[in-house]
Amino acid sequence: MNEQLDNLGIVVVGASGDLATKKIFPALFALYCQGWLPEKFRVFGFARSELNDAEFRRRITEHLTCRYVPGESCEQRMGEFLAKCRYVQGAYDSRDSFLDLYQVMRETEDGESANRLYYLAIPPSVFVDVARAIGDAGLVSCGPGEPWSRVVIEKPFGRDRESSDELTQALSQVFSESQTYRIDHYLGKEVIQNLLVLRFANIVFEPLWNNKFIESVHIVWKENIGLEGRGGYFDQYGIIRDVMQNHLLQILALVAMEPPARLDPVNIATEKAKVLRCVPPLSLDDVVLGQYGESERSGRRSPGYLDDSSVPSDSITPTYAATRLRIGCPRWEGVPFLISAGKGLDARMTKIIIRFRSVSGNMFCELGGCPTPNELSIRVQPDEAIYLSLTNKVPGMGMTLQPRDLDLQYKEAFAEVIPDAYESLLLDVIEGDRSLFIQKNELEAAWDVFTPVLHEIERRRVKPEPYEFGSEGPAAVGKLTP
Amino acid sequence: MNEQLDNLGIVVVGASGDLATKKIFPALFALYCQGWLPEKFRVFGFARSELNDAEFRRRITEHLTCRYVPGESCEQRMGEFLAKCRYVQGAYDSRDSFLDLYQVMRETEDGESANRLYYLAIPPSVFVDVARAIGDAGLVSCGPGEPWSRVVIEKPFGRDRESSDELTQALSQVFSESQTYRIDHYLGKEVIQNLLVLRFANIVFEPLWNNKFIESVHIVWKENIGLEGRGGYFDQYGIIRDVMQNHLLQILALVAMEPPARLDPVNIATEKAKVLRCVPPLSLDDVVLGQYGESERSGRRSPGYLDDSSVPSDSITPTYAATRLRIGCPRWEGVPFLISAGKGLDARMTKIIIRFRSVSGNMFCELGGCPTPNELSIRVQPDEAIYLSLTNKVPGMGMTLQPRDLDLQYKEAFAEVIPDAYESLLLDVIEGDRSLFIQKNELEAAWDVFTPVLHEIERRRVKPEPYEFGSEGPAAVGKLTP
Repeated sequence: MNEQLDNLGIVVVGASGDLATKKIFPALFALYCQGWLPEKFRVFGFARSELNDAEFRRRITEHLTCRYVPGESCEQRMGEFLAKCRYVQGAYDSRDSFLDLYQVMRETEDGESANRLYYLAIPPSVFVDVARAIGDAGLVSCGPGEPWSRVVIEKPFGRDRESSDELTQALSQVFSESQTYRIDHYLGKEVIQNLLVLRFANIVFEPLWNNKFIESVHIVWKENIGLEGRGGYFDQYGIIRDVMQNHLLQILALVAMEPPARLDPVNIATEKAKVLRCVPPLSLDDVVLGQYGESERSGRRSPGYLDDSSVPSDSITPTYAATRLRIGCPRWEGVPFLISAGKGLDARMTKIIIRFRSVSGNMFCELGGCPTPNELSIRVQPDEAIYLSLTNKVPGMGMTLQPRDLDLQYKEAFAEVIPDAYESLLLDVIEGDRSLFIQKNELEAAWDVFTPVLHEIERRRVKPEPYEFGSEGPAAVGKLTP
Repeated sequence: MNEQLDNLGIVVVGASGDLATKKIFPALFALYCQGWLPEKFRVFGFARSELNDAEFRRRITEHLTCRYVPGESCEQRMGEFLAKCRYVQGAYDSRDSFLDLYQVMRETEDGESANRLYYLAIPPSVFVDVARAIGDAGLVSCGPGEPWSRVVIEKPFGRDRESSDELTQALSQVFSESQTYRIDHYLGKEVIQNLLVLRFANIVFEPLWNNKFIESVHIVWKENIGLEGRGGYFDQYGIIRDVMQNHLLQILALVAMEPPARLDPVNIATEKAKVLRCVPPLSLDDVVLGQYGESERSGRRSPGYLDDSSVPSDSITPTYAATRLRIGCPRWEGVPFLISAGKGLDARMTKIIIRFRSVSGNMFCELGGCPTPNELSIRVQPDEAIYLSLTNKVPGMGMTLQPRDLDLQYKEAFAEVIPDAYESLLLDVIEGDRSLFIQKNELEAAWDVFTPVLHEIERRRVKPEPYEFGSEGPAAVGKLTP
C-alpha cells in the first residue's frame, strides 16, 4: 500500500446512475474544492450507457454545488474538475471492457503508478460480476509497496445472513477484507460521527449510560414521501432490509456499544459486533409491519403503495416496521430498544431518543404531579441538533415544574459547512480509514438479528397493517411500547 | 395562626428608605396586580420622616411598574393600591409611636381581627429597638387561633457569630423563631429557586454530583459599579459580610447539600446547616482581599474606593474577596469550592460554575489534544440561563473536537415574566412558607465559617490588594486556584 502516492484513479462503476450523479460526483467535487484530493487525481466513469466525455461531464455538472467556493471561482473549479473526468462505456461482466478502462487510465497517468478506488454504484446483483471482471483484468494490486486498490460497495449486502455471506465470500476472491469498504452513509453523517465523541469525550454521559438510569432508547426514521418510482428495488427488499438492518442497527450499535480499546477500525468494529451479538434474534411478536395506503388530505390525494406502477398490486412488502430489541448484556438488560422506520409518514426525520428513568422517590411528586423524566434527543436529520430536556421551576409564584430543553443546534453552534456524508466517507476511503465502514463481523451480527424474523415473515406471508399516507404509521405499534 | 384570614396589615418600618420604596412597595404592587394578596390587605408605612399620606403615596408611586398589567388598567390598579396605603410617623424605639400605628390600623380594619406582617426595612442597629417597641405595644399575637404576626428582617445579621447570636436572642424575646423571616433575597431569585429542582427533579445530575465527577465549583459574584455613596454602610461591613457570608454561602449550601428528607423549611434548613457545618473555618491562607483603586479607561476616570466621600481615606475594608472552601463530607472531599465577590469589576454577574473532571484514559487524547472537561454553568443574573458545555466533533473532514454549549435561556424558554425576588419572598411570608428564609441553625453555621478569618483580618489589619476599577480583580487570586 502506498498512502503517500499522489496519483489516484477513482473509478465509478455505474457512473450514469442516480447514486453516482447525485452523491458521488458532487462529493468528489466538494473534496476537490477543499483541497482534500491528491494532486494527481482522475475520475473515470464506467457504465453501459453510450456517452462521450462531453455528455458525461454535462451529466455530472447538473448536481455539482458551490458550497465550498465563492461564486465566480466556482465555475473555474468546476472546469478544472471536469477536465479530470473521463468516461468509458462497457459491460459490467466483461474483462475486456475493464481492459478498455485500463487503457484510458494509463493514458492519463504519465506512466506513473497510481492508487485505484473502485466505487461500485450499481445494483448488488452485479457486484460479483464487476469485481470478477476487474480482477480478471488484473486491475487489483495488493502487494507490499504497490499502489493500493480499494473497492466501495453499498447496501443491500444480501437479503439475509446466507446470501450476505455468499456475497462476502465471492467478493473476497478479488478484494481482501481490508480492501473492502462497505459504505453505510448514515455512518458518515455528522451527528452519527459525533456519537462516540459525545459518549466518550464527555464525562457527563457514561455514568448515566446504562439500565440503572435509562428507561428506553428509541431510534426513529421517518420519510414523508412514498416510492416515487423506486418500487423496482424497494419492493424486493422492504423497509427492514432497506433501512433497519443497516442504518438503524448501526446507530443502535454506536449508542449501545462498550467503549472500544482504541479508536481504530478494528476495535470499533469489535465492540459494535459484540453488542449486536448480544441482541437475541427477533421473533414476529417483536415486530409490527405496515404498508401505506392512499390518503386524501386538504383536498389532495396521495397514492398508496400499491398504486405505484412499479409495485405488484398484491405486494405485501412492508413500508413501515417497528421492532423492540433486547440487548442481553449487563449494561442494557431490561432496557427496550425501539426501532421504527417508515415511508409515507408525517415527517422526514431521523432521531435518537434516550429516555431516562424517573427520579426514584422524587420529593417533588407531592407538589402536584411527579416531574417528567429527562430525555436526551439527538436529531440526525434534518437540522442536526442535540436536546436535553430538564425539569425546571417555571418562573413565577409557587412551584410549577415543567420540562424545558437545553439545546445545541448545529447551524447556530458551528460556522462550518456541514458536509454531506459521502464527502467524509470518500475521503476516509482515500485515506484508508475504515472506522466508519461496516466490517464483516458486524455485518454478520446485524443479519443474525433480523434473518430469522425476515424468513418467518416470508414463510407466513405476513400482511402489513395498512396506514394512511402522511399519518404516524400503523396503530399496532402500541403493542411494542410498555 | 390563621392562614385563612383575609384581613392583612403589612407594616413597613423604614417606609421612606431605599429598600422600601425601590423593592418592597413595588413587590407588593406586583403581588396585588396578580391577585396574590388577601382581599382585605392594607399597607402601613412607618418611619421617622414627616410625611402625610399623599406625600407617602407619591413617593411609593415613583417605583411602581406595570409589568403585570396592560397600560391603561395599570393606572387604575395603582389608584386602588395606593388607596390602601397609609403612613404613620414615629420614633423607632417608642411604644407610643407603635400605639399610634395601632390606632391607624384599627381604623381600617372594620373591627375585624387581622394578620400582621412587620417588614423591618431599617438598619440592623435598630432591629431590636423596633422589635421591642412593637412587642411593648402589644402588637404581636401568637396564640392558637389568633391572627398571625410575622417579622421580616434582612442582612446584615450581626458582624460575627457572637453579635449574630445576640441579635437572634434579643429578637426572640418578641418574635419566636417560627415568626421570624430572615430574608436573603438571593434565595428568591428564580435560578436559585430552581437549584433544588435541577438537582433533585432530574435524574441526570445527582449521579454526577460528587467528587468522583466534579473537579471544582466556582461561585462568582461581580458588580461593575463602585460604592456610589453607600460607603457609610459598606465600609463598616466589607464584601465578605455584605455578600459572601450570606448570599454566596447560601448558594453554596444549595449546590452542595444532601437531598432533604422532604421539601419543607425545616428539612431544607437542616441539610443546608449540615453541609455548612462540614466546612472547616477559613484561615487567612484561604482568602484573597482586594480594594478597587481609581482607573482611567478610554479617557474616562473612575474614582477609587478611597476617593468616595463616605469612606475614611485610610480604610482597609475589602471591596473584593475570594476564598477557597473545603467541604469535609464524603460527597465533596477534595473538591475546592471557590467563592469570589467584588465591586468595581469588569462585569455585573452572578454565576455558578460546576467544572467536571476530565474523562479518565480518554481515547480521544491521541487525536491531538484531550477534550476540554465539561462545565455546567448556571447564570443567576443578569439574563438567567443554564449552559452545559459538551465536547463535540466539529463538522467537516477529520476529527476536530471542540466544546459547544447546550443552553437554556430563561427569556427564550419561558413566556412567564420573571418576578423580582422580593415578590416571591413576600408572598412566602404571607403564606407562611419559610423554605426560602434563613433559619437560626443555618445562620449560626454560616457565621462559623467566616468568623475566625474575619477576626484575624481585623486583628492583623490585613491590607487588601489594590486592583484597578473595571478590572478582573486582584492578581493574587491565582494563589487559590490549583
